[in-house]
This record gives sequence, C-alpha cells and structure tokens, in this order.
Amino acid sequence: MVTVGIIGAGRIGRVHTQSIRTQVPEAVIKTIADPFMNEKTEAWAKENGIANVTTNYKDILNDPEIDAVLICSSTDTHSPISVEAIKAGKHVFCEKPIDHDITKIQEVITALNENPVKYQVGFNRRFDHNFQAVKKAVDAGKIGEKHIIKITSRDPEPPAPEYVKVSGGIFLDMTIHDFDMVRYLAGCDATEVYVAAANLVDPAIGEAGDVDTAIITLEMEDGSLAVIDNSRKAVYGYDQRAEVFGSKGMVSTGNDSATKAVIANEEGITSEKPLYFFLERYMDAYANEVKAFIHAIETDTDTPLGVDDGLKPVLMGLAAKKSLEEHRPVKISEVLA
Amino acid sequence: MVTVGIIGAGRIGRVHTQSIRTQVPEAVIKTIADPFMNEKTEAWAKENGIANVTTNYKDILNDPEIDAVLICSSTDTHSPISVEAIKAGKHVFCEKPIDHDITKIQEVITALNENPVKYQVGFNRRFDHNFQAVKKAVDAGKIGEKHIIKITSRDPEPPAPEYVKVSGGIFLDMTIHDFDMVRYLAGCDATEVYVAAANLVDPAIGEAGDVDTAIITLEMEDGSLAVIDNSRKAVYGYDQRAEVFGSKGMVSTGNDSATKAVIANEEGITSEKPLYFFLERYMDAYANEVKAFIHAIETDTDTPLGVDDGLKPVLMGLAAKKSLEEHRPVKISEVLA
Amino acid sequence: MVTVGIIGAGRIGRVHTQSIRTQVPEAVIKTIADPFMNEKTEAWAKENGIANVTTNYKDILNDPEIDAVLICSSTDTHSPISVEAIKAGKHVFCEKPIDHDITKIQEVITALNENPVKYQVGFNRRFDHNFQAVKKAVDAGKIGEKHIIKITSRDPEPPAPEYVKVSGGIFLDMTIHDFDMVRYLAGCDATEVYVAAANLVDPAIGEAGDVDTAIITLEMEDGSLAVIDNSRKAVYGYDQRAEVFGSKGMVSTGNDSATKAVIANEEGITSEKPLYFFLERYMDAYANEVKAFIHAIETDTDTPLGVDDGLKPVLMGLAAKKSLEEHRPVKISEVLA
Amino acid sequence: MVTVGIIGAGRIGRVHTQSIRTQVPEAVIKTIADPFMNEKTEAWAKENGIANVTTNYKDILNDPEIDAVLICSSTDTHSPISVEAIKAGKHVFCEKPIDHDITKIQEVITALNENPVKYQVGFNRRFDHNFQAVKKAVDAGKIGEKHIIKITSRDPEPPAPEYVKVSGGIFLDMTIHDFDMVRYLAGCDATEVYVAAANLVDPAIGEAGDVDTAIITLEMEDGSLAVIDNSRKAVYGYDQRAEVFGSKGMVSTGNDSATKAVIANEEGITSEKPLYFFLERYMDAYANEVKAFIHAIETDTDTPLGVDDGLKPVLMGLAAKKSLEEHRPVKISEVLA
Repeated sequence: MVTVGIIGAGRIGRVHTQSIRTQVPEAVIKTIADPFMNEKTEAWAKENGIANVTTNYKDILNDPEIDAVLICSSTDTHSPISVEAIKAGKHVFCEKPIDHDITKIQEVITALNENPVKYQVGFNRRFDHNFQAVKKAVDAGKIGEKHIIKITSRDPEPPAPEYVKVSGGIFLDMTIHDFDMVRYLAGCDATEVYVAAANLVDPAIGEAGDVDTAIITLEMEDGSLAVIDNSRKAVYGYDQRAEVFGSKGMVSTGNDSATKAVIANEEGITSEKPLYFFLERYMDAYANEVKAFIHAIETDTDTPLGVDDGLKPVLMGLAAKKSLEEHRPVKISEVLA
Repeated sequence: MVTVGIIGAGRIGRVHTQSIRTQVPEAVIKTIADPFMNEKTEAWAKENGIANVTTNYKDILNDPEIDAVLICSSTDTHSPISVEAIKAGKHVFCEKPIDHDITKIQEVITALNENPVKYQVGFNRRFDHNFQAVKKAVDAGKIGEKHIIKITSRDPEPPAPEYVKVSGGIFLDMTIHDFDMVRYLAGCDATEVYVAAANLVDPAIGEAGDVDTAIITLEMEDGSLAVIDNSRKAVYGYDQRAEVFGSKGMVSTGNDSATKAVIANEEGITSEKPLYFFLERYMDAYANEVKAFIHAIETDTDTPLGVDDGLKPVLMGLAAKKSLEEHRPVKISEVLA
Repeated sequence: MVTVGIIGAGRIGRVHTQSIRTQVPEAVIKTIADPFMNEKTEAWAKENGIANVTTNYKDILNDPEIDAVLICSSTDTHSPISVEAIKAGKHVFCEKPIDHDITKIQEVITALNENPVKYQVGFNRRFDHNFQAVKKAVDAGKIGEKHIIKITSRDPEPPAPEYVKVSGGIFLDMTIHDFDMVRYLAGCDATEVYVAAANLVDPAIGEAGDVDTAIITLEMEDGSLAVIDNSRKAVYGYDQRAEVFGSKGMVSTGNDSATKAVIANEEGITSEKPLYFFLERYMDAYANEVKAFIHAIETDTDTPLGVDDGLKPVLMGLAAKKSLEEHRPVKISEVLA
Repeated sequence: MVTVGIIGAGRIGRVHTQSIRTQVPEAVIKTIADPFMNEKTEAWAKENGIANVTTNYKDILNDPEIDAVLICSSTDTHSPISVEAIKAGKHVFCEKPIDHDITKIQEVITALNENPVKYQVGFNRRFDHNFQAVKKAVDAGKIGEKHIIKITSRDPEPPAPEYVKVSGGIFLDMTIHDFDMVRYLAGCDATEVYVAAANLVDPAIGEAGDVDTAIITLEMEDGSLAVIDNSRKAVYGYDQRAEVFGSKGMVSTGNDSATKAVIANEEGITSEKPLYFFLERYMDAYANEVKAFIHAIETDTDTPLGVDDGLKPVLMGLAAKKSLEEHRPVKISEVLA
C-alpha cells in the first residue's frame, strides 16, 4: 500500500485524486495541500476520503507516513518542490513541465542523483489508448523502419491572453506534449528543430507576444523526420492525431468521439466531432499514468517517464523558440547551456 | 468483331450504346431500332457512329450482318422479341426482367433449347466493382461457410404512381435486383420467402396497389439465411449495401460517393452522400456486363447470366408477392407451374 | 443516501458493486448475499467496502436499513425474489429476464400494484452511449417518421451446450436484449413476429434443441418494420449495431473498438475489431443503469425501465419461439393469456 | 470542332489520346508525332482513329488544319517545342514541367506575349474529383480563413536510379505537383520554403544525388502556413491526401480505393489499399484537364492553368533545392533571377 500526498487541489490535482480513489486500490491519499484551501475544497476532500487537508505542502513532506507526492501546483513551483520532496525521500510524480528553465531541471536531476527516489513527469498522452496502440505497432515492427512521424495537435479553444503571457509560449505550454509524443513514437531524440509559425487565431495572442499556429519540423537522431502542426483553435474539437510512416507501412490514429452514431440525410453523412475537452479525451490516460507511478514504487522499477523525459521536451521547446526568433533551423545542442 | 443491333433507344439503350462505343472495341453497333424514332434520336445515333436507324426491330433481326441484339425495349416486349431473335439466330442480351409471366420465360427457354445462341440477362449489379469484391472474398473462403446474407437496397426516389401500376409490383420491379444479388452472393437458390411490408413512403403507391417498404427473409438451399430490406425512398441517396457473414468473418460493402472530401466543423464530421442516381452508381457495371456479353460471343463461352438466372429472380418475386398476399412463408416450389 | 443490498455475487453482481462503489456516490452497499459465499468472495466484498456478507438473501430483505436490492441471482430466482422484495418494501433492480414464464412476471406486477416500490429491469443496452445517441437522434426528429429498424446482434462465442439447454432458447436468452432495443428505438410495441432460423454455428446447439442463427422480422404498432439478425458466433468480436431509417434520413451506430489505430500496409488498411467481451462493450451502460435506478429512488420518479418493459420482450421471445415452431408469423396477442 | 496534334506517343500521350477519343467529342486527333514511331505505335494510332503518324513533330506545327497541340514529349523538349508551337499559332497543352530552367520558361512567356494563343500546363491533380471537392469547400467559405494546408504525397514505388539522375531532383520531379496543389488550395503564392529531407528509401537515390523523404514547410502570401510530406515509397499504394484547416473548420480528402469492400475477421477490419498506380488514381483528372483545354479553345476563354501556373511551382522547387543545400529557409524571391 502506497500512502500519497497531493500538492495542489486544482483541476489536475482533483483528476489524480479521483483516479487514485476509483482505480488505484494500491494507493491511498492521506493528505492534500493547497495554499488556497477553503471550505469547499475541504468538503470535496472529505467526500473523496482524504483524511487531512493543509495549506502548507511541507506538512506532506514532513509526514513520515507519506511515501509519495503528486506535485500538481503551479508550474513555477514544480522544480523547487520536486527538489524538496526528493530530499525528503518522497517518490515524486510531477506535472509537466518540470520547469521552463533548464538549470532548474538540472537541480532536480542533481537532487535525484543524490537521493534516487522514483520520479515521474506527467506527460499523460503516452498513456492514452490510441497513442499506445500506435507505439505498440511501431515497436512490433509493423511499419518497418520509421521514416516520417506526423503529429496534429490542435486545441478546441485558445487560452486567455493573460495566461498566454505567463505560459512560456506555445512551444513550452502546448507543443511540449507533442515534443514528448514525437520522442515516444520515435524512440529517440530530436537533433534539430525548425519552426514556421503565425498569429492567425486571435490577435490578442500576438499582442501577448506569442504565436497560435505553427508547423514544427524535426530531424531525429535516427535520421527520420518528424512534423507537428499546432493550432490554438479547432472549432470541431480537440484534434489529436498521430501517424508513423515507414518502410513497411503506416500506422495512424484519429480522434475519439463520444459515440459512433452517424446520421445520413440530404446534407451528407455526419458523425460526431472529436471529444472537445482534454479531460474527457485523456481521462483514461490520466488514470493510467498514476497507476504506472504507483506500480513503479511498489515493484521498485523505473517509472516510465523519468526526469530526463521531462528535460528533453523543454530543450525542444527552447530550440523551437530560438528557431522562430532567429528564423533558422536550430540544433538541440545549441540550447544546452 | 461483333456486329450489334440495339432494340430500344431509351435511357438504357443509350447507356449500352455509349459503353460499346467507348469501351468495347470488339463490337460495332450497326443499327438501332425504336418505334418512336425521331430526328433527335437519329442525330444522337449519327453522333454515336451508328450507321442505321429504324422504327422496326425486325430490320435488325432480318439483317444477316448483325450477330447480336441488345433488347432494351419496354418490359412486355422482352420475351417475345427474345424468342424472335433467338429464332433468327442472333445472340441476345435482354434487359431485366425477361417477363413477369413465367410461361413466357419458358418460351424463351424452349427457343434457346432449339437454337442455342448466347443469351444474357441484364442484372447489372453483378458487374459492380463493390459487389464483385464481396463475391470474390466469399469465393476465396475469406468468411468461411456462409450463414447470413444481408442486402440493403433503397431507391433515392419513388417511381411515379402510374409506373407503379404497370411495374408488376415492388418485388418484380425493384427487389428483383436484390433477389439476383442474393443468388449471386449465396451461390445457390432460395427455397422459401417471407415478406413483411408496408406502405410508408407515399400513399399513392398504396393506392396503386403496391407497398414501398419491405423486409424480405429468404431461406437458401445451403441452409443459410438471407434478408433484404427495401425502401422506395432514401433521402440521402441510392443506398446499395451488401454483407455476407460466415463462420470465419464478414465481408461487406457500403456505397460509393462522388468524392472522399470530409468537412469537420462545429456540427460534426460530414462526408458525402451516396451517389444519387443509378446510372452514376452502376456506370461501370453497365459497361462491364456488355463487355462480358461480347466476350462470351467472341470466345464462344457461356454468358455469365443465362436465361435461368433471368427466371429464378422472377420466381422469387412471385413467391414474395404470394407471401405478402397470404401472410405466410411461401416456398419457391409453390410458384412453379 | 440510498442503502443497497446485492443478491448474487456472481459476475454481474460484481459489476454492479464496482459501478456503485466508483460511480454512484449517492448509494452505499451494506450487504451482499450469495448462497455460495466463500472466503474469496468475502475478501472481495471487504476490499470493496461492503460491511456484511451472508448466504441468505432474506437477511437483506429483513434489514430495515436497506432501501433497495439488486437481484443478480440465477434467472429462476428473479421473479420470486422480486415478489418477496417488493412485499418487504424494497426498491428492486432486477437482472433480465424477470422470468421466462409470463404468469410469474404477472405475479411481480400484482405485487407492485399492491406495493408500488421502484422497479427496474436490467436491459443495460438502453444505457449504452451509442444506442442512446441513435435514440436521441430519432426522438429529435432527425430521421422523420420511422420506417425500418435494423438490429445486428452477434455474440463473439456461443454459450456452452449445457447452458443452452437451460437458457430458455436463443430468443429468451440472447434476442431478448434486441427485442428491448427494438422497443426502445421504435418507441412502441411489436404486434407480430416472424422467425427464420438455423443451426449453423455448432451442431451441439442444435442437439440441445436450439438454433444459433436467426433473422427475426417484426411488425410494429406504428406500422413500421423491424428486423434483427442474430448469430451466436462472430469471430471478429461482439457485433452490436443498430440502424433506424425514416422519411428524412437514417441514423446508425457501429461498434466500439479498443483504439482508433489503423495500420496501412501491403495487405490493406486494417483497424481494430469490435470489443470482444460484453462487459467491456457495455461497461458504461452497466454503470449508467444503476445510476438511473438510484436516481429514480432519490427523486421519487419512475425508473426508465419498469416491469412492463421486462414483460414485453419476454412476450416477443415467446412469440418468436412459436413462430419458429409453427413456421408462420405469430401475433404478440397470441402468447398473452 | 478542334483538330489536335499529339507530340509524343509515350504513356501520357496515349492517355490523352484515349481521353479525347472517348470523352471529348468536340476534338479530333489528326496526327501523332514521335521520333521513335514504329509499326506497333502506328497500329495503335490507327485503332484509335488517328489519321496520320509522323516521326517529325514539325509536320504537326506546319499543318494549317491543326488548331492545337498536346506536348507529351520528353521534359527537355517541352519549352522549345512550346515556343515553336506558339509561334506557329497553335494552342498548346504542355505536360509538366515546362522546364527546370526558368529562363526557358521565360522564353515561352515571351512567345505567348507576342502570340497570345491558349496555353495550358498539365498539372492534372487540380482536375481530380477529391481535390476539387476540397477546393470547392474552401472557396465556399466552409472552413473560414485558411490557417494550415497539409499535403501528403507519397509514391508507391521509387523511380529507377538512372531516372533520378536526370529528373531534376525530387522537388522538380515529384513535389512540383504538390507545390501546384498548395497554390491551388491556398489561392495564393508561397513566399518562403524550408526543407528537411533525407535518403531513407533507397541508398541508390542518395548515390544519384537526391533525397527520397522530405518535409517541406511553406509560408504563404496570405500569412497561412503549408506543409508537404513526401516519400518515394509507400508500400500500401499511392498516398495522395490533402487537408485545409481554418477558422471555421477543416476539409480533407483521403485516397480512392478500387472498391468499398471491407473484411472483418479475427485479425481486424480490413479495407482496400489506395489505388496503386497514378494513371488509375488520376484517370478522370487526365480526361478533365484535356476537356478544359478544348473548352477554353472553343469558348475563347482562359485555360484554367496558364504559363504562370507552370512557372510558379518550378520557382518553389528551385527554392526547395536551395533550402536543402543551404540548410535554411529560402524566399521565393531569391530564386527569381
């Protein structure tokens, strides 16, 4: 039995709470911490069988009964709390990204070298049934040698301009998931990034200093190519597709929809849009990633997504930013200190 | 080189003319006959390289240079002209149905016994790319032993009530194609028919003494089951599907559409309707059946659809009529003589 | 808060237990009864937070703290326990079928008339996301007036011959779900049934006195037609489709598969088979039906599937049996009385 | 009636001959020229109703009865014969590309300025039913403002290495069609090109100095982005897809296959591969482009694809080449002399 503390009672903290409560019988949540803890949140915690609530996450780190923490707090706290938790000997599941600053991620790596607890980064899409099926087909050799990886990743709605300003930019905020997906499907790292991007969805995003539409081309270590296309707004829903093309064929996945119902009438043949909301789309993925984390603790094996898997997509994001700024292809090695 | 005469310059006569002209280099049309021959039709014939026009089909039967005739005249003339043509030693391609009266079809059979020319009935759907692919999969053993055959056959628009009155009823006019398709896919004959039917599309059809919506269940010689569902009006287009289910799997085919374009928007994911018009849907099938007829003549081999294949669906249609009238399953043997 | 007792700790009892525990916060399971209660089952009950276990379901009926029971015991006990539970003032969720004998169902109706508790029958498919989407489109008038309803329902594997002998036959055991689905989608009752059936899947099923392949045609109260095709064995998985065709169009649903992955190679374009196992396919439906039952209790409203909805499909099944035996269409009214 | 001469009796010359003969009644082919004219080709010409054959294309240019020529000879002769034909007052349909050298294309433009006959370039894909449906949806405003255009274009088999050497490279030989498609769907020109490419399919292609796998990113005049992915070998067939994504939705098209047959068995649900051969895939497009050319002559209107539409994709191809060589984004303006 793994005793868990959750740091952050926001949307994602609640998702993980629900997953653990309903789908991870091997774990129990003892405490949840949130600086903005209030009555409503306390009531929610009680309903979900969490014994303790606190405003101070250090209460969790200091509790010797707690084996593991899930860091679901705001992005800027991910790396410092990670370091503290590692030093306190807690296993750590940290939401993405660990940090936008690679020296901060380096500090987490250093802490882990000194105190090798389990550490997992929350790139949930690797745990999605569709992307796992693509990966499985690739690994089984169904498509032979990989030549081209294509990711389409489009949000249903753009974030608020205020959020855009603090988001770190589209590449660190949104594309970072796609960078992870490329690494997952390729089974190797990118060596170079080139970005073509524009501000087409909402002028406010441009005014906030960001782009909202992008084509990102990647050259991979194994010589294959990858391309990601991003938009901050697909009116038809959350568009999350992947395709891996190789010497023996292609494997691809489309989107999930709520139902398989199809209407045929004078207008045409109409099926449902993709699921609109990321929590719907990746509901099972969120549960699966936490299960995997608890499983790694219980079996004392590696987590499926270590700190290095947290670092690499940040490097890709920083290279993408530089590529856009300098209007040229940028090698990943250029953004390494 | 096969010299051909065409009897009937209506819609289907013109379809076959165009097929021969553009796709059957082994055949040449010498003469076309139509009792309502007029200037416009003559001009059309000339444009299509047909040397002679006549109002009297006997001119074709009497022409020793003509090897084969295509009977595209009104249904009531199919069997008598067939008999005359056979006696004149012409190979015959006869549009469906040969006749609604089985004694008339028997006369054609008798004529053929005496003068065994090539005889083919125009069940065009057997020559459709989709249905042929289903048949091919069945014959290749891909689905093992056949258990259930399902045909969906729905017209885009009901015929005029005046036509309904002389049509012989839905089973001899429309379902007859589906009866042929069941025989084609099953590779054997039906032994019994049961009909549930209703007048739901247009009251005028009911007033004309017919039904417009039907479920026809068939028991086949090999013990398998078949079911046809018919409607005289599918607003989304000409709906022509087939499914064969068996011990090792299922093969099915959907409809052809004009293009593969798909639009995703706030309403859903919309692709094109099936092709609306039977001449569009079966354009290639019409050409293929004539090619097959000419090929049988040239190679002196059996046509793919002999007079017996013209008789059997009529028997099934008559049994279906009787089933509806008597509200009970009817054996095919009951409608024989 | 609704306090629940579960009668029967077999497969379906456990499915409902899990649904209530993880998805129905408004209900708590106090006791589970099973005549074959053993240590393993007790351990499972404890893990699932159930306070009491018993071998005698009367302990549940006698417990004044228990508001509602879920009858998940063997089919022959459904109606007597229903009657007892109703008399004990418990709300009842009863697995399908209530009974194969309509006089027994009548006794349940009589008990309910005397003691009108909430009563729900477990036709889970009505709570499936796909079938609900079809129903919703029909109810929203998207297809106009209903003309043809088609249900394809094929199991992935036939039951054991021993089970077949006690199953009541395919129509009461398997088709009964499809009869309910026809009623659900049609929004009215059937008036007549005709069956064409065969023993094609497994000779042992025939030896057990049953068929394994069937086409069932139904005439509905509103004049529309319905057709069900059943097979006890679809090697490609659990095939559960529905189509409703009407004056303004058609709505249909295909099967769910585990993932959307598609592989394109020299052999073709291959996507995944339908989900194989009914518990996978209807996982959400099982949870939704129990939620609906608890909701009806809490809000003191009708359950979505009353005792009459349990009776009607049995009548249809009995008429289907009679149709097969007497080889003729059978009116539902013939099996009443 | 338009009298036509065909220059070049190779594969594409024969395709156009057949199209004109069977589908363009407004045109007649008087003469076909080929330097390698032989008995077999002469026989073929006779069968196709072509009166004259010659080894010298000048016989066609000098024939005052001939209104228009189709230049289907080897690529290096396209621009000089174009110039000669224009000077001779013939309308010209010229296979793509006009030339790899833009000064040669400039000479054609100069000739046209002096002698403004009809001139059409053979980018057949614009006449394909699927791409036209995408274009139509875009033009009808169905997707709002265009943001991202995606083209997937993969050949079923790589060309012979000897051909690769003289092909002008993948961008001028293969991608040139995709460059035209991007212009067609965008309705505007590209301003900049970036290429990431590799030699992954066949080492012989690399040895011949070319790449076989490429991701080409384009920035368009209207601010939108486009991306093309190319491979010289898709084992599952000729993969020709397009997608246009915009503010109100997305329109896309997949591939055509020979039939709609689908097999479901224990392995999965398998449909047919895309059509393998470009002549099959674009059969209708080849006929439509020639019809459009003849129509422009008859109605004295502009051809749908003028000499400028022949020049622009060559500029894009040259920019792509430069981008690959210099490993940087290249503006189209850089390759304009």
